[in-house]
Order: sequence, then structure tokens, then C-alpha cells
Amino acid sequence: MFFHRKELQFNAMPDSPDPVFAKHLQEILGGQFGEMTVALQYLFQGWNTRGNEKYRDLVMDTGTEELGHIEMIATMIARLLENAPVQQQEEAAKDPVVASILGGMNPHHAIVSGLGATPESSTGVPWSGGYIVASGNLLADMRSNLHAESQSRLQVARLYEMTDDRGVKDMLSFLLARDTMHQNQWIQAVKELEEKEGVIVPATAVPYDNKDFTHKLLNFSAGDESAQGSWAQGEAPDGGKFEYVSEPEAHAGKPELAPAPPYIHNTPPYDQQ
Amino acid sequence: MFFHRKELQFNAMPDSPDPVFAKHLQEILGGQFGEMTVALQYLFQGWNTRGNEKYRDLVMDTGTEELGHIEMIATMIARLLENAPVQQQEEAAKDPVVASILGGMNPHHAIVSGLGATPESSTGVPWSGGYIVASGNLLADMRSNLHAESQSRLQVARLYEMTDDRGVKDMLSFLLARDTMHQNQWIQAVKELEEKEGVIVPATAVPYDNKDFTHKLLNFSAGDESAQGSWAQGEAPDGGKFEYVSEPEAHAGKPELAPAPPYIHNTPPYDQQ
Amino acid sequence: MFFHRKELQFNAMPDSPDPVFAKHLQEILGGQFGEMTVALQYLFQGWNTRGNEKYRDLVMDTGTEELGHIEMIATMIARLLENAPVQQQEEAAKDPVVASILGGMNPHHAIVSGLGATPESSTGVPWSGGYIVASGNLLADMRSNLHAESQSRLQVARLYEMTDDRGVKDMLSFLLARDTMHQNQWIQAVKELEEKEGVIVPATAVPYDNKDFTHKLLNFSAGDESAQGSWAQGEAPDGGKFEYVSEPEAHAGKPELAPAPPYIHNTPPYDQQ
Amino acid sequence: MFFHRKELQFNAMPDSPDPVFAKHLQEILGGQFGEMTVALQYLFQGWNTRGNEKYRDLVMDTGTEELGHIEMIATMIARLLENAPVQQQEEAAKDPVVASILGGMNPHHAIVSGLGATPESSTGVPWSGGYIVASGNLLADMRSNLHAESQSRLQVARLYEMTDDRGVKDMLSFLLARDTMHQNQWIQAVKELEEKEGVIVPATAVPYDNKDFTHKLLNFSAGDESAQGSWAQGEAPDGGKFEYVSEPEAHAGKPELAPAPPYIHNTPPYDQQ
Amino acid sequence: MFFHRKELQFNAMPDSPDPVFAKHLQEILGGQFGEMTVALQYLFQGWNTRGNEKYRDLVMDTGTEELGHIEMIATMIARLLENAPVQQQEEAAKDPVVASILGGMNPHHAIVSGLGATPESSTGVPWSGGYIVASGNLLADMRSNLHAESQSRLQVARLYEMTDDRGVKDMLSFLLARDTMHQNQWIQAVKELEEKEGVIVPATAVPYDNKDFTHKLLNFSAGDESAQGSWAQGEAPDGGKFEYVSEPEAHAGKPELAPAPPYIHNTPPYDQQ
Amino acid sequence: MFFHRKELQFNAMPDSPDPVFAKHLQEILGGQFGEMTVALQYLFQGWNTRGNEKYRDLVMDTGTEELGHIEMIATMIARLLENAPVQQQEEAAKDPVVASILGGMNPHHAIVSGLGATPESSTGVPWSGGYIVASGNLLADMRSNLHAESQSRLQVARLYEMTDDRGVKDMLSFLLARDTMHQNQWIQAVKELEEKEGVIVPATAVPYDNKDFTHKLLNFSAGDESAQGSWAQGEAPDGGKFEYVSEPEAHAGKPELAPAPPYIHNTPPYDQQ
Repeated sequence: MFFHRKELQFNAMPDSPDPVFAKHLQEILGGQFGEMTVALQYLFQGWNTRGNEKYRDLVMDTGTEELGHIEMIATMIARLLENAPVQQQEEAAKDPVVASILGGMNPHHAIVSGLGATPESSTGVPWSGGYIVASGNLLADMRSNLHAESQSRLQVARLYEMTDDRGVKDMLSFLLARDTMHQNQWIQAVKELEEKEGVIVPATAVPYDNKDFTHKLLNFSAGDESAQGSWAQGEAPDGGKFEYVSEPEAHAGKPELAPAPPYIHNTPPYDQQ
Repeated sequence: MFFHRKELQFNAMPDSPDPVFAKHLQEILGGQFGEMTVALQYLFQGWNTRGNEKYRDLVMDTGTEELGHIEMIATMIARLLENAPVQQQEEAAKDPVVASILGGMNPHHAIVSGLGATPESSTGVPWSGGYIVASGNLLADMRSNLHAESQSRLQVARLYEMTDDRGVKDMLSFLLARDTMHQNQWIQAVKELEEKEGVIVPATAVPYDNKDFTHKLLNFSAGDESAQGSWAQGEAPDGGKFEYVSEPEAHAGKPELAPAPPYIHNTPPYDQQ
Repeated sequence: MFFHRKELQFNAMPDSPDPVFAKHLQEILGGQFGEMTVALQYLFQGWNTRGNEKYRDLVMDTGTEELGHIEMIATMIARLLENAPVQQQEEAAKDPVVASILGGMNPHHAIVSGLGATPESSTGVPWSGGYIVASGNLLADMRSNLHAESQSRLQVARLYEMTDDRGVKDMLSFLLARDTMHQNQWIQAVKELEEKEGVIVPATAVPYDNKDFTHKLLNFSAGDESAQGSWAQGEAPDGGKFEYVSEPEAHAGKPELAPAPPYIHNTPPYDQQ
Repeated sequence: MFFHRKELQFNAMPDSPDPVFAKHLQEILGGQFGEMTVALQYLFQGWNTRGNEKYRDLVMDTGTEELGHIEMIATMIARLLENAPVQQQEEAAKDPVVASILGGMNPHHAIVSGLGATPESSTGVPWSGGYIVASGNLLADMRSNLHAESQSRLQVARLYEMTDDRGVKDMLSFLLARDTMHQNQWIQAVKELEEKEGVIVPATAVPYDNKDFTHKLLNFSAGDESAQGSWAQGEAPDGGKFEYVSEPEAHAGKPELAPAPPYIHNTPPYDQQ
Repeated sequence: MFFHRKELQFNAMPDSPDPVFAKHLQEILGGQFGEMTVALQYLFQGWNTRGNEKYRDLVMDTGTEELGHIEMIATMIARLLENAPVQQQEEAAKDPVVASILGGMNPHHAIVSGLGATPESSTGVPWSGGYIVASGNLLADMRSNLHAESQSRLQVARLYEMTDDRGVKDMLSFLLARDTMHQNQWIQAVKELEEKEGVIVPATAVPYDNKDFTHKLLNFSAGDESAQGSWAQGEAPDGGKFEYVSEPEAHAGKPELAPAPPYIHNTPPYDQQ
Repeated sequence: MFFHRKELQFNAMPDSPDPVFAKHLQEILGGQFGEMTVALQYLFQGWNTRGNEKYRDLVMDTGTEELGHIEMIATMIARLLENAPVQQQEEAAKDPVVASILGGMNPHHAIVSGLGATPESSTGVPWSGGYIVASGNLLADMRSNLHAESQSRLQVARLYEMTDDRGVKDMLSFLLARDTMHQNQWIQAVKELEEKEGVIVPATAVPYDNKDFTHKLLNFSAGDESAQGSWAQGEAPDGGKFEYVSEPEAHAGKPELAPAPPYIHNTPPYDQQ
């Protein structure tokens, strides 16, 4: 069960309207690594966790916090759209700055949401359930979480540098800090799980790898520059030993498929007639 | 530039037809973490890399290899569909196993692709460019790569256990092994980059975090069980010190939005009249 | 800000495993009118409300409750998948009921989520932000809410009748009841707003309708059966008077478009040469 | 069967070119509540209606009319794109108004459709079959229709105010008027069906609601402001009596899931070992 | 403007219920090359045609006919779902044929549309505006039309062979015949336009091809088998002369990108330091 | 198996930065007919070909070449974004040309990809597997290929005329030339296959067309202008004889559907009671 408190977790008040930046901010609300993604990803992970209360708690708490971040960003977007010149007037058409705002804002902010945030990215693409990850394997999922917070903090930092608005920067500073914390905590969780299970997902005990191919770097490009990397020689993280293969071989012949039955109406194999 | 060699990298020959398993295999071809995802993700990362030839080489080589994995799985799917009873005959309708095949296979395999693989997941959803990651920040992207290979190997292992077909298992053993290698190599790359840049993405030198919030675990659920985790106390991976906050506060008031101008036709603020 | 309590709002415990029904249940979690839709729709409406605290409260409270419904259904799905025969064994292939389960379940439940719920519909299509509605006009949005709860309760009732499992039916009875309450409350909200604003959205005061066409039923089919409906004559809900038009006229000529400039490389207008 | 008449239903002739407004107009053609949505929604409802000729007629006639509205808007868009400066010339690059047009228009209008309309929204997202509703339950569907025309008229009104072009306004006045008529007719249909079936969908006769929860407003936020609404006390639309619950209880315990079988490769329950 | 006549263009009456085949039939209604695609594609082409009434007429007439085909298939699907055992009863669970129907049908047919057709493909993916083509260049578009009718007739033929139901076969025979006609007519239109414009789209007169590369077959695979094709030597359709290049060269160097500015937070070029 | 060579196939070096044109160029990388589409379409066709090595070779070689074209365009986009003013400074806000760039560029280029190309169209919509075609019927697929290269060359020509940048034009000239070659080669392949199989797909030998409807042009619009086309009379491409039908008849009655069983909760047929 969830409960709501009406106050915001942190400030979300811009100094001035900026409809184009409101469009840009949508990325961290409804983009691939926006707050909708992390909130729902962590909650689905929690709901799918079997045992392991400690990790379940951690993902549920963090997912619940992220719901409040969606709220803050949605509020900021709504305020960036207040007092924006979305109504085209005689004079506006002649003012190139106004013209560039009308062309540069997300049309949904004016036509669809009535100056409110929308569940979509900075290009106006609806958020998709296809973005999130909850596999039942916690080491795999903690790596996803660490990665998501890395992309997310990167995007927040880029947005921070794209604006001069102090109010916007204030909120982004807070989000950056939370992404720092979340990277810290997922690194910690990854470490714990790697100590229990080894570094390969799913656990290295899975016995049916083809051992001939678990440590070979295959060079698929012209030239051997890649022979020097730390992934081409020396000890591998799982304890094996890296090898370098300069010219990878084919281990099977050309694929030849049988003709389809006539009722499928494929092209018959003319060359076998 | 790319070149093609007609032989397959590894065997892709099942013992018997199995159209339902052909549907399942689509997941590792065209699902969220299928071979289309890793192939195109690594190639886009390579094309977006600025300097850093060593990493560029590594992602380009691996992406190029993955193109060959799409080819192997596509071939396997085409062969699992050969000799399958997709034509419903009088008798078939009465045979429950045939009926369950007709209901359980991906209809596209019969109607759309003529017994061939399709660029979609095991539920028949088209592959989406929204799955891939190439941010220009290599540490963030290497974490994505490590994560993708973790999900991918997990899915291959699950598929391995869902079938008795020795030919299918043979190919999956090879794919497992390559996913093991790729996890090994991305762990190595992550380590190198973390040594150069620190563990927080983008580099911790970014000076505009709100320092009050970079190390606090906020407990958003009833009860204090989460106070005990290694992410709630002790040293954090970035060198800071974790703190635990039992009852997170609101740091801002209730969001109040100004009324929209009349030409937006929102509901007027009746409670402020 | 949101907070989480670890207990479920209501029972979510099936009597027996049923992976095919688990697939069907996904519809009310991640389908067009699933709990993800209503939860996020109400929350976005709350975040976009300008003034009108009373309505804002109502949508925020209901949206927050719906988050807990996602949780209940996700838990139910995870349990319906426990002890399900997703591993194909020699014997299984010969048992047609097992075969029909392997063909009839959502492959993601085995391969992707490890026996957990996924953010997608009963056909395995990811949930989309394109499903939700938050326009800033409360009368429009309350109509959407009333409609969403109508579809939602209809789908729950259909699912209720598709299973014999008493545990599943128990949870669905609760969800039906909440959908009844929510229909009641949105009807109430619609009434209040219609009293303030009139029945046409946006408010009938909008002066730029073309008055010749605001009350005419245009008959676009052969035959005049539609002349008898209460929408073809008598008083209209907005106080106007319905008229019936048996043979609608064209009020404009054939559309003729100018040729495109040569640099667009359209087909030139051969018939005007 | 359908037939076409070459004349337009109403004028669709702008005074001047305006490629940015052409992009905006796409919303009411191919957006969530554009004419493609209502046309196809009403037609699918008609095709799915079982008996009830009167309602079938009404939805088929209205759906057929909406096909003609797609035609009008498509024509208007094509004309707004005529004589637009989409070819970048030396001088254009220096003229900020031209620059803002090149940046602000939908690139598909120049590159893909050759100055014609596209089946997509104002943000360039393709129209989706996931927008439409046809459930076989007419009361549910008529509520959807009323809602769709509410959003649609709201969007048309916003667009009306975003332009000074008299030709565009003339067409939008006509569309507003038809949306007024359609809201009127769907309200009428909703009323008729509510008289037959009661206000709760599906019909209140459905006997398996959990009666303890059909009339309770659950307060999921801090504070009791919501106790005063007409939905928290007094008679409910379905004849029941609203109750207010200040502190909603959990009616079930914490969800605990059984471990997955080993062949699923989830994380084992370390805390139960 | 469009008008509707209540009778169907052709029979759409199956002999018996078949919910699994109803799922399959969705492909030619709402799949990539279903009737929704051709209907809307031809209509958008008509609306975007500038001049050239003759072709505009042809696409509008054919598009209007296809609207009636959606209607026929929707009707057939609704009838295939009548009397289907979608309610799971005690006995049903034990009857493997019923079990395979419950697992094999499209869940939306039971839960969402109430035994009616849905705007989606045979895998339950919503129809997308991204399927259609209307470019303003008629030769390009006529080639798309010819292609669409080729895929469409192929899919209808495959479905024809997947069923024994005489009523279904009767309707499919009609659809096959219309696809035959439509292939005939688009071939004719392609011929006319090629005579006017040449075979290369857009018209060969476009002067800015790099002439060194307009007729070279580049062999990107190991081995020279492809040197023998009629596309590797002899006269080309546009009057040029084909050439074969056994080992294609790179005509440019390795791509080297400049570092991004610091505020983008990409990985710095360590190898250039 | 695939191999990579580090040099580019052709020049991809612009004269100057142009972030808005970088957005436009995305169309031919990740749009409906961009290089991702043709590359993957040809490769899937190759993988699905059964026998017919000659055609398999041709599609595999061309698909492999197109992978290199994605690489060239991705490189060009990355370079068009170098030195672009994506950071908003005090002065920038006042400079309308800079403002129009910030509003007109694809926000993903700054926020998500760090000045790199993305797998999406010019409107920022992710590339979809739903764009590609590989049916197992080579004549159908070669028509798709010819069509895809027609749209693709048309789009390249339009982009060529939208820029003054000589470096960009140089690359586009090369792509135009390859599209010319590819149109030539697919025309040749279509011819060969038509000689073997006839012009109707699948092969005219399919005996279950309803012969009454294979050559009739049905006039679904008011007026008989369409009687004059070469598709309304004379010999058809498949050897039949075209006929013109001025007023198409309905060959079936009004569709009447049986009521749904009560457990589906559709509206009951009031008019049959």
C-alpha cells in the first residue's frame, strides 16, 4: 500500500518561464532513463523478489522515493509553462524569439495537457513499459539499477549545464545528489551479491557453458590493435585467463534451409530443380 | 565498412521441429536483451565514441560478432519451423497436441515470414530502437553492456533448461560462453574507467551535487528494517559515509500552480474565487 | 512524496498455479485500462491541477490507492506462476495439457521476469504512456476517469467469470468493489462540474462554434432508420434542439492542391500540362 | 460498404502558409484524440455491436462522418505547407524567422510526405490502434465516446486560439460545432443506457462485488481535507451511501513469495537459508 | 466525404466457431499489411496528391473499397468468436482441446472487445500509423501499393490453407481476387509512370548522383558467386551498364571525432592526452 | 559471420556544424526507410531464404553494404553536432538564431547521446522492427526492396536540396548513386522472378481466387471519371481483361451478430427482446 504526503520532497520553482526547457526536462521524467523508469523498475523488482527481504526493502524504498521525484519534475514543468507565449498573436509572428518558442516547445504542452507535464520523453514519445527491467535475478537487476542511475545522473548534469535558471539548477542539484546516493547503494548491493554468487550472471555454477569460448576475445576487424587490451590477455574477473584470437574461424558451414511446403507459398528453390 | 562470410560462427541445427520453442527463441533475437539489442548497441557506441580508440575497437568488434549471433539464431528458428504442422487438417483439429501447437506458435511464423525468423520478441512485439544505449560516456555505457550481457545470459540459461533438444542446447551453450566472455570483458573495462574517473557517473568532479543528500538512505516504508544494510552505514564506494534517515522530511511546501490563461480552457480555480 | 506500507491492501493468494490465467491477468495490470493506467492517469491529473484543491485531493488519493492495486495484482501473478511446469521434460511434450500451458502462457513470465509480473498487457505489449489522459480541464478528465473505471470493472468481471479459483475470485471481488466506488465518485464529480460549466467541454461559453452545425444529426448511411433516435429530435442536453439531416451536403468543393516546388520531387501535375 | 464523394464536407482553405501550425494541426488528425481515433473507434464499435441496431446506426453514421473530417484536416495541412520555405538557402540561414520555421516544422512534412499530412500526432508519433475503445458494452463505450469528443473539442478550441488565420479558424469553428453535436448525442445515449442498466458498468446486477468496499472513500494522504467532498458522504449515484475512511487499513499481510525452482536461475532466498 | 451502406460487400459467415483462427485472421485486419494499412495508405495518398486527378481517383476508390474489407473481416472475426468456450469450467480445465483454445486465442477477444475484432495484428500488437506510405511521389507510392497487395495476397493464401472452414474460405477467395485485381491495377499504374519518368525514383533527371557508383555491384561477401547475376553485368534497367566489383574499397579514412565540450560530460579522449 | 573494416566506405565530413540538419538526417538513418530498415530487411530476407543461393547472395551483399551506410550517416550526424551551441548562455537566450537551434534540434542529441547519432527518425521516434519485410516469397520481397530504395532515394534527394553544406551534399550524392544501383538491381530481380512465376504474388497458379472479381475496377466514388483509366479496360498484366463497374453492389446482407453469452457482460440486444 502507498500513502501520499502533499508537500514536495524538494524545491521545484523556476525563476522564469521557459517552454523549450520544459520540453527538454521531459527526458528525465518520461524518457528511457527518466524517473518513471526508475520508479516503476524498482517497484516491479520489489514485487517480483522471492525471499531476500533486505534487497526487497531497498528497492521498494528507493522506488517509492522516485515516485516523489516524478512529482517534483512534473511540478517544475508545469511552472516553466506558466506565462509562456503559446498564443500566436499578430506581433508574435514577427518576433523571432517568440516564433522560435512556438516552434521549439512540445506541442502537447499547449494542446494536450493544458500547460502540464506529460508521460513522455523530450521528443514527445510516450513512456514505454519496454524500458524497465525486473528479472528475478538480483545481481542482474542491481547492475541495471546502477546503470540506470548512471545514465540518469549524466542526463541531469547535461540539463544542469543547458540552463541559467537558478531555480531549475537548485532542483537539479538535489536530483544529482540522489543519483549519487543511488549509484553508491547499488554498487554496494552488486558487491555483496558478487561475493555470494561470483561475477558472472547467472551464477558461474551454471555448468553448461561451452568452455572453449568463455575467455576468447575474437577480433572481428581488420588489424590487431585490440590484442593489447586488458580483456585480451591476463586474468579474467571470473578467474579464467583471457585469450586473443586474431582471425576468428567459422565453426559451422553455410546455413542451408529446406524448402517450405507448398501451402506456405514461398518461392520454390529454383536452384535445386 | 562490413563484410560477410557465408559460414555460420557456430552450429545452429536442431534435432527436431518445435514451433513453440521457435516462438520462445525470438526473445534472444528480438527482445529487450536479444542479439539485435547488443549488436546495435555496441555499434552505435562505437560510432559515437570520440577518441579512445581502444574502447571503440572493443565495442565495434563485439558488435560485429553479435551480428553473426543474430544470424545463427535466425537460422535456428527457421529450422525449428521446418516440418511443423501449421496447416490445420481435419485430423489436426482433433489432435490436442497439434491444436496446442497451432495455438501456441507465433502466428507471424506461418502467416508473415513463411517459416522464418522475425525482428520481434517472444510475445511478437517488434524490436525497438528504444532498447539501446549509447551515451557518449563510456563508463555509463560499459555498465549498460555488462548489464545487457547479464540479462542475456540469464535468458539463454532459462531457455537451455526449457528444451530437451540437443541441437538447440549445443547452440545455446556457445551463446552462454560468449556471454560469459562478454561479461568478463565489460567488467574489465568498467574497472579501468572507474580507476580513471571514480565510481560515480559522470565523474565525481562534477561540483554541483547538493552535498546534503549524496549519502543518505531515505526510509520510505513503515518500519526500520532497512537501517541495517551496508548501504545505510559505513563507508560508501565513492569514499563518503552512508547515513540512515528513518523519517524523510519534505523540504518544500505543497505545490501550488497558477491558473492557466483563459485561452487554454483549463478548469478555472473555483476555490480561489 | 509517497510512502509505502509493506502489507497488501487485500488478499492476493490463488488456490492453485495457473500460468495461462496469469497471462490473462496482465490485462488489468498493464493493459490499456489496467491499474498502471489509472494510477498514473490520476497522479498526472493531480500534478497538473491548477487550484481546485478538492479535486486535486480526490485524484491524488485515488491514484495512490491504485498504486497498491498494481502491487496486489503483481503479487497474484507471481503466485499463479509458482509451481508451473515451464520446464519442458520428455514426458511433458507428450502431455497435451502441459503442452497447451507451454504454448499458452506469456513467454516473458518464464524467460524474462523469472516468474514475476511484467509491465505489459495480456498480449505481451508494453504499457504505454499514450494510454493516459491529463488535460488540465477537469470535466474532460473526470469523464475519462469514469470511462476508465467502466472499462476496468467490465474487464475484471469478465476475468472473474473465466476462472474457478476461489483465491483469484476473492481478489477480483475486491477490485470490482473499488471500481464501483470509483465510478460512483467520478459520476459525482462530473455532476458538480457540469453544474458549474454546462455539459459541453470546454465550457459552452466558448463563442466560436459554427452554430449551423451544433445540433444536426447527419445521416451518412443509406436509409433513414436513424431519424427516430432521441439524438435526432427533441431537446439536446445543452438546451439546444436536435435536427435530423437525411442527406448531408458538401459545403465545399473538391480539394485541389497546388503543385509542390520541384525540389520536393513529387510527381508533377501531368494533367495540368 | 463505403462510398466516397469528391467534395469536402466543409472549407479547408487557409489564408497563408504556416508549416509550424501544420505540425500542431496533426494533433487533431493523428493524436490520441484526433479524427483517426474517433473515426476508427466508432466504426469498430459498430462492427462489434450485437443487436441494438439503433446504437449501431448511430456509431456507424458518426464514424463515417469522421472519415470526412480526417480528409478536411489532411487537406488543410497540405495547404498550410504550400509555399513554405523548407529549402534552406544562403539567406535563409541568416533569417531567424526562416530558421525557426525550419527547426519548428515536422521534418516528415518535408522529407517523408512531400508537403502532405501524415498519420501521426503533433510530436510526430505514429497513430496507434492502442488509442481506440470498442468493448461490446455500449454504456462503457458511449462514455468513452463522450470523453473523446470532450478532449477533442478542448484541443480544437486551444488550436483555434493559437492562430490568427481566418481560413483555419473557419474550419475549426465547424469542427467545434460537430464536437458539440457529438457530445450532445453521446450524453443522450449514456442517459438512455443508464436508465436501462443503472449507472455502474457492467450492470449493477453483477452480484460478486465485495460489498464492504463499494462506497468507501479511502484517504491515502496526510490530512482529512478530502472528508468534505460530496463523494465522501451522502447518497451515491448508484443508490448506496458514501462513507469516509480516514486511515485505510491493510486487509492482508506482507506478500511473501516462494522461491523459484533452480532452473529459473533467480537469486536464491539467502535470508531463508 | 464518405457514405456507408449497411450491407456487406461479400459473405463473411463461417461454418463453425474457431477462436484461434480468429486470432490468426487479425493479421489481415490490423497487421503490417492488413486492410487497415491499405485502406488508410490509399486514402492518405489521395489526400496528398497534387494534380493528377486520374491517379487520385484510383487510390481514393480503392482505399474506399478497403474500408469495406475491414468491415467484412471484423464481422468474420466476431462470428468466429461466437459460441467459443472462453469461460473456463471445471471440466474445461481437464479437456486438452479446450485448454489449448483458452491458451491459444487472443486474450483481448475475451477480456477487452467482448468477442469482437480489435485494431491489432495476430500477435496482439496495435496497428501503427508507421506502417503506411504516402510520399507525394506517385511512382514511389504505386510501387508500395503493388508491394502491399503482394504481401497481402500472400498472407490471405496462407490463411486459406490453414483452415477447413468453407465459410472462411469463401470470404478469403473473394479477398484473394480483389488482391489480384489490385496487383493488376498498380502494375498498370507503375508502367504508365515509368514511361513518363524513367525507372529510377525520383526521376532520373535528378543530376546530382555520384556517377561512379550508380551501376556497380559491390561484393561484400567472401567468394565471387555473385559475379554471375544479371545485376552484375549487361544493361541496367535505366540504360546504364552494370559492373561487378569483387573487392570494394574504402573511399574514406577511419572516422575520427573531435572531443565533446566538457559540459556534455562524455568520456574525455584519454588516448589523445 | 560479419567482419568490420575501420575505414568508411565514403566521405562523411560536413563543412560546418548544423544541429537542426543533424535532426533531419536521422530520417535516413532510423526512419521508416532509413538505412537501419534496408540493412536489417535485406539481412532477414537472406536468413529466411530457402534455396535460391543467387538471390540470397544478392540480399546478403546489399544488406552488408547498408550496415556501412548506417556507419557513414552516424558519423556525419556526430560531426554536424560538433561545436554546436547547445549550452544556453545569457547571450544565447537573446540571440534568436541560437534560440531557434536550441528549439529546433533533437533534444536527444544533447541530453541522451552526447552529440552522437540515435536509432530513431527525424521526429525522434525509435526505429521499429515493424518496418521491415521478409516473407519467404522472393517476388513479394523484391518488390518491397525496389519500393524501399525508391522512398529512400526520394528522401535523400529532398535532404540534398535542403542544405548548402558541400560536405553533406558530397555524402548524399554517394548515397543517391547507391540507391540508383539498388533500384536497378531489384528491378532486374523482379523481372527474372516475374518471368518464372507470373506477375501476381503468390504465383497465379494459386487456384482459389473467386474469378468473378479478379479484373473488376469498382468505382466507389460519385461520378464515372475513373472509367477511362488503363486499369478499367483492356488487357491486364496477368493476361485477363479489365472491366469497369460503375455502381458496385453488395453481395451479402447486413451483418447481424448473435448476442454474446451473459458472462461476457456485453450490452444485451434490447431490440430483440
